[in-house]
Amino acid sequence: MTDSPIRVTVWNEFIHEQNQAAVAAIYPDGIHQTLARGLRDLLGSAAVIQTATLQEPEHGLSAERLERTDVLLWWGHAAHDRVGDQVVDRVQQAVLAGMGLLVLHSGHGSKIFRRLLGTGCMLRWREAGERERLWIVDPGHPIVDGFHEEYLELPQTEMYGEFFDIPPPEEVIFISWFAGGEVFRSGCTFRRGKGKLFYFRPGHETFPIYHDAQVQRVLANAVMWAAPCGASYRPAARQVVDPPERLTER
Amino acid sequence: MTDSPIRVTVWNEFIHEQNQAAVAAIYPDGIHQTLARGLRDLLGSAAVIQTATLQEPEHGLSAERLERTDVLLWWGHAAHDRVGDQVVDRVQQAVLAGMGLLVLHSGHGSKIFRRLLGTGCMLRWREAGERERLWIVDPGHPIVDGFHEEYLELPQTEMYGEFFDIPPPEEVIFISWFAGGEVFRSGCTFRRGKGKLFYFRPGHETFPIYHDAQVQRVLANAVMWAAPCGASYRPAARQVVDPPERLTER
Amino acid sequence: MTDSPIRVTVWNEFIHEQNQAAVAAIYPDGIHQTLARGLRDLLGSAAVIQTATLQEPEHGLSAERLERTDVLLWWGHAAHDRVGDQVVDRVQQAVLAGMGLLVLHSGHGSKIFRRLLGTGCMLRWREAGERERLWIVDPGHPIVDGFHEEYLELPQTEMYGEFFDIPPPEEVIFISWFAGGEVFRSGCTFRRGKGKLFYFRPGHETFPIYHDAQVQRVLANAVMWAAPCGASYRPAARQVVDPPERLTER
Amino acid sequence: MTDSPIRVTVWNEFIHEQNQAAVAAIYPDGIHQTLARGLRDLLGSAAVIQTATLQEPEHGLSAERLERTDVLLWWGHAAHDRVGDQVVDRVQQAVLAGMGLLVLHSGHGSKIFRRLLGTGCMLRWREAGERERLWIVDPGHPIVDGFHEEYLELPQTEMYGEFFDIPPPEEVIFISWFAGGEVFRSGCTFRRGKGKLFYFRPGHETFPIYHDAQVQRVLANAVMWAAPCGASYRPAARQVVDPPERLTER
Repeated sequence: MTDSPIRVTVWNEFIHEQNQAAVAAIYPDGIHQTLARGLRDLLGSAAVIQTATLQEPEHGLSAERLERTDVLLWWGHAAHDRVGDQVVDRVQQAVLAGMGLLVLHSGHGSKIFRRLLGTGCMLRWREAGERERLWIVDPGHPIVDGFHEEYLELPQTEMYGEFFDIPPPEEVIFISWFAGGEVFRSGCTFRRGKGKLFYFRPGHETFPIYHDAQVQRVLANAVMWAAPCGASYRPAARQVVDPPERLTER
Repeated sequence: MTDSPIRVTVWNEFIHEQNQAAVAAIYPDGIHQTLARGLRDLLGSAAVIQTATLQEPEHGLSAERLERTDVLLWWGHAAHDRVGDQVVDRVQQAVLAGMGLLVLHSGHGSKIFRRLLGTGCMLRWREAGERERLWIVDPGHPIVDGFHEEYLELPQTEMYGEFFDIPPPEEVIFISWFAGGEVFRSGCTFRRGKGKLFYFRPGHETFPIYHDAQVQRVLANAVMWAAPCGASYRPAARQVVDPPERLTER
Repeated sequence: MTDSPIRVTVWNEFIHEQNQAAVAAIYPDGIHQTLARGLRDLLGSAAVIQTATLQEPEHGLSAERLERTDVLLWWGHAAHDRVGDQVVDRVQQAVLAGMGLLVLHSGHGSKIFRRLLGTGCMLRWREAGERERLWIVDPGHPIVDGFHEEYLELPQTEMYGEFFDIPPPEEVIFISWFAGGEVFRSGCTFRRGKGKLFYFRPGHETFPIYHDAQVQRVLANAVMWAAPCGASYRPAARQVVDPPERLTER
Repeated sequence: MTDSPIRVTVWNEFIHEQNQAAVAAIYPDGIHQTLARGLRDLLGSAAVIQTATLQEPEHGLSAERLERTDVLLWWGHAAHDRVGDQVVDRVQQAVLAGMGLLVLHSGHGSKIFRRLLGTGCMLRWREAGERERLWIVDPGHPIVDGFHEEYLELPQTEMYGEFFDIPPPEEVIFISWFAGGEVFRSGCTFRRGKGKLFYFRPGHETFPIYHDAQVQRVLANAVMWAAPCGASYRPAARQVVDPPERLTER
């Protein structure tokens, strides 16, 4: 219920765009910049969008930066192992303290996602450029605010199929249908400490998924949903509590 | 993400206040008016607050009124059975279509709450004016936005104790401790269709619970949380779907 | 942890089998008898299987019968409205007291299912004899005990598609993929009072679904899972509790 | 649905019993042996109970031992940091593959619990020997099978209070009331991969909690509940899927 803009950081490992011409053609200045532009267009003055990449010092995720981030988006694929454990620790602590986290597509295999969920987070996949329909199964959720159809359709995507080895999500918002015969829980929320997580499946680097207006709208809605709120007291570290009077008197 | 004010209706059976001097002393113009004032003070131009009571035609809940209600608050106790089934049907349909519903205290026994949950919704209780602490167990939830302490404390309350015969809530935000030895899931959310429900325990008619600033803050937060959002398409009635081309071709 | 056999009642409205030759060809003595035989074969001495139909006095579901039923299976389609409200009340109370309930296919529209869930329970559907794959998304659940493949496949089925207007299930065990482009939460569990519910989608009357060994295995597993257990005390009706000594002393 | 006995391993760090006379007086041969005897008495031929401790090679949790363990109980307090990361990795993988895990009392701070949940798992606490009541809030759950009272009472316990920094549990079975004014979610289940987790709060080393018949009954029930079941196929590692024929044909 505050009016100050939500401070968003879009993180990208930023490798495919520099190594593969096909990806560079779609995302010439990086997936992070396309994502950032989409959010700026939709959220306007409600949010301030910055970016960070693997190649920056501390991957662009210094303690200072995280302190000034309300919602972090995470895109990674080829270099999950090159993300330093210290940065992963720091992001985990920021989430537990209330920072929102949106994990995108192949980010399912990232250290931070696996750290927060406690499972392997693996799945089945296939690159066949097949059609995907993301059915809305929680039509009252703020993340699908403003959608006028029962599903989003993407004409060509990489397939992700079940079993997706995640804990039972708190909420499942999208279930994908793939032409090749699979299904997938494509939009899932989780709570960790005071922080909100949203995993969103679409986003392969060789299809122009993040230029899609529907995908951008989902992510803009998710930023608003994931922004910190709740009690402002500091939840406990392991904390000794003084006995109340009545107990002391015994 | 709209700027038009949330349209709130506070419903009260409005019986104790007219029959019992002790209740009238606390709520001279009815529990609904005290609730309405509290919401107006806290929400200002973000919401427009109206009231309705059992005694009005259609209990003040005509089809027209419900169409212009985003969030309905419900207080009832002595006259659950006098609420007409047609009105209950109408409120249920409104919730499924997206209207938020806040059920207060003894409203746990109302027709509409039992209708939406499918269980008996019964509990243990005792009137001994005992102390209650509502511990926050979901500190990142918007309904506890702005709270600075780990718990709310009410010096004198009616006790409600487990087992509370509700389905497993989607979210449990408060768990109450009572001096006499009981616990209670005092703040619970449920989803039904596109509508959001919040049950909040405090509110007995002979303690001045709704004059408490913390209780008012919880309810104001809950109004914001329960306001309709999500997909704007109309979720299915039982609906025949035409075969897609590929299937027709067989 | 008891060794006495589970007492199962298979309920069927038993109309299509008597009115339509195509259905009678598949289920000559009724869907209920096919279901009962499948459960007897798989569960052996672990269960005693009886049947009941709409046409019997009290639809075969007298108070006495329900008292001797641990798990009830429900198949209905054409005559939901002909099920008496008194019987629905009775079944609801039995579930809240601990009886398991398996609701099959078009039973999604039954009075008892809608009563227990509180929503409309509607969905999209199409009869095009299309292929269905039920993907297992909760591989550690007892209801899929013994399955060796990642999915069950049914070559020709009626399609059911999302949005399925049910509350968020406690557990989702199967998600269906349909050749025509839809998905569906096909195996869902719910808790109501002390009773366990399982909704299982497959089962249209003109495809021989209940002769399928995999479908029979799911239902046999579900019977074992849904059998009553838990605390043997009687959960509260609205119950006044005497003040404990300490409170009385004030 | 198999008749072979459940293979249980009770793990204990086994330090307090060797260092503190007060603890040795209650658990002369270790908490693990008391737990093992309780399970043997209650489960009889349904289970085979072994023990393991921190001091054994690989803490008694070799790959071979874990392969022959269906359910693992975990008690630790003073030496969480001395548990080797390789063993933690191995236990995590075993859980994801289906092994049940019961985490007891101060085990909330163990590496394995925090690894599987992704949060800090911290809480408030106080040693004042105060009274605890564990209210049953899920009376139909197999873990409370056979209980005849609405709550378990322990006359003297260490207090654990909210906020307990865990993800929202799949199921909450017990909520504790403490004389000093706190509440706690004392019996919680989680699913990770194919494995089932149960956290159970009681169990401080200087109160004879594990000699209590009710506590033993909860743990015996939990062993039965947590034993592996479900689909016998091997859920995916990240797995490339061959295109189906129809897609290949394009």
